[in-house]
Amino acid sequence: MKYVIGVDFGGTNIKLGLVNPKGKIIRRARIDTRSYFSSKAKLINSLAQKIREVMIAQELCATNISGIGIGLPGLIDPRKGIVRFLPNVPGWRNVPLVKILERSLNIATFIDNDVNLAALGEWQYGAGKGADSLICVTLGTGVGGGIILDGKLYRGEGYVAGEIGHIPINEKGPACNCGGSGCLERYVGNQSLLKKARRCLQNKDITLEEVYALANQSNSKALALWEETAVHIGNALVGVVNVLNPRLIIIGGGVAKAYKHLKKPLIQTIKNRSMQVQSRMVAVRRARLGDDAGILGAQILMKDLTTGAHTKHV
Amino acid sequence: MKYVIGVDFGGTNIKLGLVNPKGKIIRRARIDTRSYFSSKAKLINSLAQKIREVMIAQELCATNISGIGIGLPGLIDPRKGIVRFLPNVPGWRNVPLVKILERSLNIATFIDNDVNLAALGEWQYGAGKGADSLICVTLGTGVGGGIILDGKLYRGEGYVAGEIGHIPINEKGPACNCGGSGCLERYVGNQSLLKKARRCLQNKDITLEEVYALANQSNSKALALWEETAVHIGNALVGVVNVLNPRLIIIGGGVAKAYKHLKKPLIQTIKNRSMQVQSRMVAVRRARLGDDAGILGAQILMKDLTTGAHTKHV
Repeated sequence: MKYVIGVDFGGTNIKLGLVNPKGKIIRRARIDTRSYFSSKAKLINSLAQKIREVMIAQELCATNISGIGIGLPGLIDPRKGIVRFLPNVPGWRNVPLVKILERSLNIATFIDNDVNLAALGEWQYGAGKGADSLICVTLGTGVGGGIILDGKLYRGEGYVAGEIGHIPINEKGPACNCGGSGCLERYVGNQSLLKKARRCLQNKDITLEEVYALANQSNSKALALWEETAVHIGNALVGVVNVLNPRLIIIGGGVAKAYKHLKKPLIQTIKNRSMQVQSRMVAVRRARLGDDAGILGAQILMKDLTTGAHTKHV
Repeated sequence: MKYVIGVDFGGTNIKLGLVNPKGKIIRRARIDTRSYFSSKAKLINSLAQKIREVMIAQELCATNISGIGIGLPGLIDPRKGIVRFLPNVPGWRNVPLVKILERSLNIATFIDNDVNLAALGEWQYGAGKGADSLICVTLGTGVGGGIILDGKLYRGEGYVAGEIGHIPINEKGPACNCGGSGCLERYVGNQSLLKKARRCLQNKDITLEEVYALANQSNSKALALWEETAVHIGNALVGVVNVLNPRLIIIGGGVAKAYKHLKKPLIQTIKNRSMQVQSRMVAVRRARLGDDAGILGAQILMKDLTTGAHTKHV
């Protein structure tokens, strides 16, 4: 096993890490995504340049690198190496990112959904160690999920599995951007949480950080807001637990910062409402790796590609 | 590949089939389960005897049979070969069925949940041919499901995956026997359907067969009942489709007899409320094999066991 370059491609920042064979990030770099909103080509050039810099700084050449793994926030075709659509980065539609980077760097490159890579990272190096099946939920503006089943990343037929945020939790729930209604994200996505917080706390400028701080000071309205949020998430996960009978649920993403307020009602809802065997077997934990999950996940992906695991669709 | 004995072990009947290597059932037998409610031992003896009779009738001996596969309606431990619990057959708790039959018949025996075997059967020989991932839903007194993902039966960590009937579809829904609330089964399980039908149609003795017949005669209340049922099922499946991104949903079980009345609102609900890519990829079909699905599924299970597929947990 050689070194791997892991890239967490976000709408705000692109974070790179050089990962050694033991799964340690030994060098990092960062690109401000927004500075390149005007040009895809310049952004890709800048990414290739940063990768070269990281390699040079560690005195590594292409033959020392087994691959580059990139997690992106959107619709990805990992088999064809094409970024289909990034909702938060203007102009990114049908970009053959793998082909462009491989030509430029001459290193095998692989792309996937960022939540899938985060799930792989948490599974092997973080909160999911030892679990053979888990759901890694990311709570933020969007609510997503990465799924490991029987020791393998599950991507779905069109590589879009894991949309935990679009589980309907009420038949007559509010309409969702996705075209459905009553989706979990409509109750606990950042926008909905903020709206609710601003109404409950009668402060139209409050941020989620402040709602979190208020809960830490035992503000009853803020505490109730997090509790309500946890119960919604729990109700959606009851269906997942009953259908997939996983060993573990990992809670990550920005909103997971409030995990200490979410934890009790979340676990209670899942444990009390799920079926007996499922409920007994499943544990709920907070994600451990933060932003590094995706970078480390890239290493797992490369390892699996070289050993032939997880390659069904790729 | 040799012959396989497939057994569909139901609370009312036990159906046996001798399956040839091409997946054809060439001889059948049946046992009335209720006649043996008083004694587990007698029921198992009778099953072994029927298996012997089927083999003798075809002039086959143990060496011609690659295995016996049995699907049972309850909590099964396929790895240990133990029937943990059958809710509808008195006294069946922790029965080491595999050990007993293997001693008696000297043929490798395998047990699994009946819905899992039905899913395997439909996948290879029925409505699911060619699909790499599917959910096979069974509608009846209970609402269950078998899951094929990436070309493999998915059982879950405790072999209890697939509980489609216990997906909550409303946060404030009615309490369910499983301990949860708002579960799909509370809306569309036979008992709930009958209750609703008797109220709507103001006939306290009506059967579901009669509700089906009334719908065939365009009775508007009966039609509305099936439509409402289809929408509930669809709403639960939207979550499954968004999370698992399968190629196919197969609808089977007793209630699927009303499929022609369920079909349109069911497909509409799934297509309109699921996310774009998921919705475009998923097809919905009626199960094709009826009672034979489980018997044929046993053959697939045996084939996979001999070739080393699906054996992770067994």
